[in-house]
Amino acid sequence: TETDFFPGIPKITYAPDAGAGDVLYFRHYNAEEVLLGKKMKDWLRFSVCYWHSFCGTGADPFGLQTLHRTWNEGNNLMECAKKRLHAAFEFFNKLGVDYYTFHDRDLSPEGSTLEETNRNLDEMTDLALQLQNNTGVKVLWVTCNLFSHSRYMNGAATNPDSHVLAYAGAQVKKGLDVAKKLGAENFVFWGGREGFNSIHNTDVGAELKHMAEFFRMAINYKEKIGLKCQFLIEPKPKEPCKHQYDYDAMSVIGFLKHFGLDGHFKLNIEPNHTTLAGHSYEHDIVMASVFGMLGSVDSNTGSPDLGWDTDQFPMDIRNTTMVMKTVIEQGGLQPGGLNFDAKVRRESTDLEDLFIAHIGAMDAFARGLRNAVRIREEGVITSMVKKRYMSFSHGIGQRVEDGSASLEELEDFVKKNGEPNVTSGKQEKYETVFNHYL
Amino acid sequence: TETDFFPGIPKITYAPDAGAGDVLYFRHYNAEEVLLGKKMKDWLRFSVCYWHSFCGTGADPFGLQTLHRTWNEGNNLMECAKKRLHAAFEFFNKLGVDYYTFHDRDLSPEGSTLEETNRNLDEMTDLALQLQNNTGVKVLWVTCNLFSHSRYMNGAATNPDSHVLAYAGAQVKKGLDVAKKLGAENFVFWGGREGFNSIHNTDVGAELKHMAEFFRMAINYKEKIGLKCQFLIEPKPKEPCKHQYDYDAMSVIGFLKHFGLDGHFKLNIEPNHTTLAGHSYEHDIVMASVFGMLGSVDSNTGSPDLGWDTDQFPMDIRNTTMVMKTVIEQGGLQPGGLNFDAKVRRESTDLEDLFIAHIGAMDAFARGLRNAVRIREEGVITSMVKKRYMSFSHGIGQRVEDGSASLEELEDFVKKNGEPNVTSGKQEKYETVFNHYL
Amino acid sequence: TETDFFPGIPKITYAPDAGAGDVLYFRHYNAEEVLLGKKMKDWLRFSVCYWHSFCGTGADPFGLQTLHRTWNEGNNLMECAKKRLHAAFEFFNKLGVDYYTFHDRDLSPEGSTLEETNRNLDEMTDLALQLQNNTGVKVLWVTCNLFSHSRYMNGAATNPDSHVLAYAGAQVKKGLDVAKKLGAENFVFWGGREGFNSIHNTDVGAELKHMAEFFRMAINYKEKIGLKCQFLIEPKPKEPCKHQYDYDAMSVIGFLKHFGLDGHFKLNIEPNHTTLAGHSYEHDIVMASVFGMLGSVDSNTGSPDLGWDTDQFPMDIRNTTMVMKTVIEQGGLQPGGLNFDAKVRRESTDLEDLFIAHIGAMDAFARGLRNAVRIREEGVITSMVKKRYMSFSHGIGQRVEDGSASLEELEDFVKKNGEPNVTSGKQEKYETVFNHYL
Amino acid sequence: TETDFFPGIPKITYAPDAGAGDVLYFRHYNAEEVLLGKKMKDWLRFSVCYWHSFCGTGADPFGLQTLHRTWNEGNNLMECAKKRLHAAFEFFNKLGVDYYTFHDRDLSPEGSTLEETNRNLDEMTDLALQLQNNTGVKVLWVTCNLFSHSRYMNGAATNPDSHVLAYAGAQVKKGLDVAKKLGAENFVFWGGREGFNSIHNTDVGAELKHMAEFFRMAINYKEKIGLKCQFLIEPKPKEPCKHQYDYDAMSVIGFLKHFGLDGHFKLNIEPNHTTLAGHSYEHDIVMASVFGMLGSVDSNTGSPDLGWDTDQFPMDIRNTTMVMKTVIEQGGLQPGGLNFDAKVRRESTDLEDLFIAHIGAMDAFARGLRNAVRIREEGVITSMVKKRYMSFSHGIGQRVEDGSASLEELEDFVKKNGEPNVTSGKQEKYETVFNHYL
Repeated sequence: TETDFFPGIPKITYAPDAGAGDVLYFRHYNAEEVLLGKKMKDWLRFSVCYWHSFCGTGADPFGLQTLHRTWNEGNNLMECAKKRLHAAFEFFNKLGVDYYTFHDRDLSPEGSTLEETNRNLDEMTDLALQLQNNTGVKVLWVTCNLFSHSRYMNGAATNPDSHVLAYAGAQVKKGLDVAKKLGAENFVFWGGREGFNSIHNTDVGAELKHMAEFFRMAINYKEKIGLKCQFLIEPKPKEPCKHQYDYDAMSVIGFLKHFGLDGHFKLNIEPNHTTLAGHSYEHDIVMASVFGMLGSVDSNTGSPDLGWDTDQFPMDIRNTTMVMKTVIEQGGLQPGGLNFDAKVRRESTDLEDLFIAHIGAMDAFARGLRNAVRIREEGVITSMVKKRYMSFSHGIGQRVEDGSASLEELEDFVKKNGEPNVTSGKQEKYETVFNHYL
Repeated sequence: TETDFFPGIPKITYAPDAGAGDVLYFRHYNAEEVLLGKKMKDWLRFSVCYWHSFCGTGADPFGLQTLHRTWNEGNNLMECAKKRLHAAFEFFNKLGVDYYTFHDRDLSPEGSTLEETNRNLDEMTDLALQLQNNTGVKVLWVTCNLFSHSRYMNGAATNPDSHVLAYAGAQVKKGLDVAKKLGAENFVFWGGREGFNSIHNTDVGAELKHMAEFFRMAINYKEKIGLKCQFLIEPKPKEPCKHQYDYDAMSVIGFLKHFGLDGHFKLNIEPNHTTLAGHSYEHDIVMASVFGMLGSVDSNTGSPDLGWDTDQFPMDIRNTTMVMKTVIEQGGLQPGGLNFDAKVRRESTDLEDLFIAHIGAMDAFARGLRNAVRIREEGVITSMVKKRYMSFSHGIGQRVEDGSASLEELEDFVKKNGEPNVTSGKQEKYETVFNHYL
Repeated sequence: TETDFFPGIPKITYAPDAGAGDVLYFRHYNAEEVLLGKKMKDWLRFSVCYWHSFCGTGADPFGLQTLHRTWNEGNNLMECAKKRLHAAFEFFNKLGVDYYTFHDRDLSPEGSTLEETNRNLDEMTDLALQLQNNTGVKVLWVTCNLFSHSRYMNGAATNPDSHVLAYAGAQVKKGLDVAKKLGAENFVFWGGREGFNSIHNTDVGAELKHMAEFFRMAINYKEKIGLKCQFLIEPKPKEPCKHQYDYDAMSVIGFLKHFGLDGHFKLNIEPNHTTLAGHSYEHDIVMASVFGMLGSVDSNTGSPDLGWDTDQFPMDIRNTTMVMKTVIEQGGLQPGGLNFDAKVRRESTDLEDLFIAHIGAMDAFARGLRNAVRIREEGVITSMVKKRYMSFSHGIGQRVEDGSASLEELEDFVKKNGEPNVTSGKQEKYETVFNHYL
Repeated sequence: TETDFFPGIPKITYAPDAGAGDVLYFRHYNAEEVLLGKKMKDWLRFSVCYWHSFCGTGADPFGLQTLHRTWNEGNNLMECAKKRLHAAFEFFNKLGVDYYTFHDRDLSPEGSTLEETNRNLDEMTDLALQLQNNTGVKVLWVTCNLFSHSRYMNGAATNPDSHVLAYAGAQVKKGLDVAKKLGAENFVFWGGREGFNSIHNTDVGAELKHMAEFFRMAINYKEKIGLKCQFLIEPKPKEPCKHQYDYDAMSVIGFLKHFGLDGHFKLNIEPNHTTLAGHSYEHDIVMASVFGMLGSVDSNTGSPDLGWDTDQFPMDIRNTTMVMKTVIEQGGLQPGGLNFDAKVRRESTDLEDLFIAHIGAMDAFARGLRNAVRIREEGVITSMVKKRYMSFSHGIGQRVEDGSASLEELEDFVKKNGEPNVTSGKQEKYETVFNHYL
């Protein structure tokens, strides 16, 4: 049948006592288990990405296809597209994940004209809607691929040719229609070509202005059609461009505020992008959250010794604990989620590897969640931090906090109270306590 | 006499035909020569920094003092401080530089109380004012050292202890008074300890709030005393902290806009900090300029294979050309300038090395300026760029530019006009043309 | 005719007074001009690479083909392969370059069996030989592509499956035959997949042993067939693998010496690989030269802010000067050369961009050569360095130099002569003098 | 008494059920517990370093002293030196560590002549010997500080002035005498200034030759005095130099083999140096081990987003597991050990922080050991790897392995057996299984 793309692989279940080699069970992720008043699946809101897991071929800049999937074999592109979608829904079900994400061009092939392309997309989204209704699987987010086609090689919204910007706009218009049709909970903008390869040929000021106008048009159309989803921007510092304008969380926040767009967007943070920007794994998660802008997470990882986007499945428990600690502190990610923007290595050619990778990563995040919950419940770290900042709850500290102090007053305080005490930051103690929970 | 700290070194002069080994002449910098309607010295506004060039000892994390300067030898700290200032003014004069920069604690030693410290500073700034008046040398900017003393080890404005924040506030109040007294044209904030070494012990949201309140108090006091200088923030991504909040230009812009402070500040960009943030040398210069926030430049360089702040003298003509191209495009840096936040290597122990280093760097910037002027005057690159963005001056492009277009209109345009042409970005042509001017 | 793939582009000539925009002339490279007793073309030994310049499509990990070349359009693979070769020779001639380099699979398509593949290669090398004879263009080096086909995804000589190693061996055997047939002056091994993506699944010791045995078999076969060319290994630290065994020059030297293979190889240094290994641009050129192992150079560049192999055309005059200074010091690169392992950006879609890029890079190296010649001829830097090490030409220094000193003798020397003087390293003076020649 | 430098801190004991905040207990390290036939203390061979933990002041390039230790207060340098040594032995005992390491100049202050310096060292090593005998604490290794004094600013063994090289030789002679006197099990060479800051002023070939001669003299003297300890070289890529010759494990191996010195040395690997060289944490541990050169480990960590040597206490369980897995595979580190070349952060100003940091790191390594033991005992990963390389135990694979195959034979094999199968590398499965043990 159309639902037998993964023969021999059963529905994945929770088996906390599974042995080291039993990699087709969850040992930590127990979807319905309630922690801190919420089911694990509602804290984690896992999502599978369509492009890597169903369209990926294993090709890399130095090598040809290694992954041969039955759903990519067929007589024509639309037939393959449909098989692929059936395969994906079989996968979602067996894995037990409620969400998926896709680019418009993942789901459906580009035609020879925009009109034909859009008809293809209509046909595929009809099928997607039917499969969603049959299974209860939902769209975490939709995004438009504005970077693969050669027309976008010099940028989409920031292209020096307004004709290309117009094409990108037409594509986003359709993408927003699709988001509405499929009930997507978010819509992502990733500006893979919005930046430059050479500063010499680039008018940075003009390009930023055009990008802002492009976003404004998208906001207007979203409101016009009554689309309720959250808009998200996904920062990345470089690759494919030498420099991308959405470098990191703070760059995007600065841009949005400069153009008065910050009320309309949150951020979709991908830690592999964060580390490429020179930050620690959790940095942009924390910064976005602090600025009230953390919308969703592309849960993957790179390797700190590699300078490009490897999109690996997240497997480091320290990192997943840090992410989930921040997620808990802000009360969850909804309507965002944890989207596995990750691909099996091109050498992982067995079909089961696709399951093993997702299971391993879901368990890594489930462990992170369980650790973060224990940290929260025991409160040892929280109370150490609270005590550390205590001086801002009274006296001169409180006056700083509420904005009523002045430099003159601070000087008076020092003249009366002299030199402050030197207080240990106790980093190693915090690290040791944190390790206790891993 | 008190003005013979550099015996045997004459006033440095312009000698365009000097040989390779004649390193005590300017071969490119001709202060009074007029280019594009302005004297070279007014385009370049060179400044010598006090800390590296007069206080530096050559110590590094793995080694002890190597630089032994006569002006650091004396019976007590204040005596040395005065000799040092005389030596500095002798140096400024012989080198032919009109500006200097300093931290409060460079100029004058810390006493056992804030009151004693401030008295020391009064005595030293009296002398500085006198030397300024005698020589015509001016203060490009003043800054407060809020990072060396152990009280600041956990931050100044972002310290978890409000007592420390108060101390920093008292220090900045005095720093602003000094800026007024000496007629400083700018005042710099560099947040060397404003960040964190461990995310575990840090309340990022609280610290950012405190930093914003701290800036607000400084603005209020500046206005109260009628200080006219430009406030500047100097971004740096890390070191000494693991992470600094003023990571790069866009981080600072995002922060300032979030807290409504952007009207009161510009940026002091140090390219060695820019490259540590993972950007190309000129990146933050360009971004700050595009956002209308480029105030001044700490003209130094690092080495792309080193991950810390080496503060070397800038010697790369490509880089200086890129910087000066941007400076020309925004009409100059005034009231900012090019401050040599650079130190001779600890192995460069000859007194003449201090001259050679500054001369080499000034010539590197003079060549950069001359190149940028030729690029501007010939207009080859400019007109290539202008032509590239031409489509935004009419039709659909113009409607995007002026904010009147919509996604529907863009879609209509594409339906009528079809696929855009693919246009070469011609990066190698731009690079070749640029090389022509180096 | 078959020689009209670049209509409208003439033979490139030397025009030292060409203007900024006249990018289809050499302004610095004058092939027959003699410097330091050798023609420029013999110092530089430029070579065009086949893969990037004739097989490249502009696809990148985020984007599809942008470069559409007439020589890639045809009814079948062999027909295209022949057109491509004709186009290449037209290009070599118009550009005025005497050498080219290729992978076996660039020149000729893989068939369904090794036998068919080899027949294709025979047919193509017949044509290549004919075109070489007609034009005088020669092969700088041949290499085997042991990384693109899926069979090599887990390594070639280091594959865990000896069947794959056998396949790689068969391919290298044919590659050596081709090298002999076409009179290649060198043969390169680049181990793109010789390394690992995960330390967990890898037996590093076994893989290194297999790689050594593989090289030994290649040496034996080379000797057996009387092939006279130089064997070269090309280091690269990572990409496509997470870690490659041939990390950098010193890693390869250590490996070769460990397995007793160092007499049979030299190194082909690619500076874009060097910078990815965390070194400065010229580092591996210098180290290889010092160890007597510098055989050839893949003259390209990356960007220090990017962590992957961008293979850009070298345009930085400082870098080309440093390379040519080392090349002059070792008396030239022959039988190696400067191979442009560089590709036009995927946005550089005009046919002329292929010429502009090569011309710009050749001129950059010609400027580097001219600068290095002036440095050599004036001798200012050389004599500064010589003087710096003078103490090793007599007394205790000489005894260290010739291996006859002992620790006891050194201690006696210090007891007699006390503390050494501290001598300035004068880095800024060297940099200033060096800049004089740029 | 002289043994009360850490009042209120008891002997640290093993308490596996201690709570999150009970940071003055070992929760994982149980010294006498036997795993895989060896006591934990014999697998781990922990050592405390003298310089960071007893000489460190908390100063950094941007800040003054923060750590005020009673043992550094006294009337003269020798008195302080003795108090410091007493404090150290109290610390070793309370912590329960059997080894320590030091530089000659940590233990005892430099005098005004070499003779006086050596007399100081004699006096201090007399006391050290007495304390060693009293307590059973031993010297893991001694090293000479050839980088802090200004005489070494341009290098020690690679200094352009042979007088400096002679001084370094005299110092190493005494260091070897001290190693013999105190029964040191190893002697380390770390070439902090053996490299260059500017390629322009450096004769790399001459410097490498001098370094080799220097090592040869040390070997000769070691043999002459009958010193039995293991010589170790500690690689580091950069800092304080721009480039150090002992860049990483493979660089040192290449150098040693080139000069025929490899039989006399092993490597002391510091992972914070490894990551600065662009490798993953465990890379040099694994490579050194594979080449039979892993002698000892400086167990610390950096942060992958920081480009300098932070010497932090190792706290990452994944990393410690990887290191101990390799150590177990090679049968232990003896006579080397795990030396904590790590310092408390300068903000960790409480005396207890010195204990907490060591305890946290010892527990991190104890967890790593326990994990590695379970990995070994269960054998899941080992057998997966063994199966992966199985083809080399018979047939064509075996012939490659034993060096008897030829390219012709490989070609014949392929002609008979055709295309190899593509076999999944199963990286995600390995990662998932590995995570099971963390």
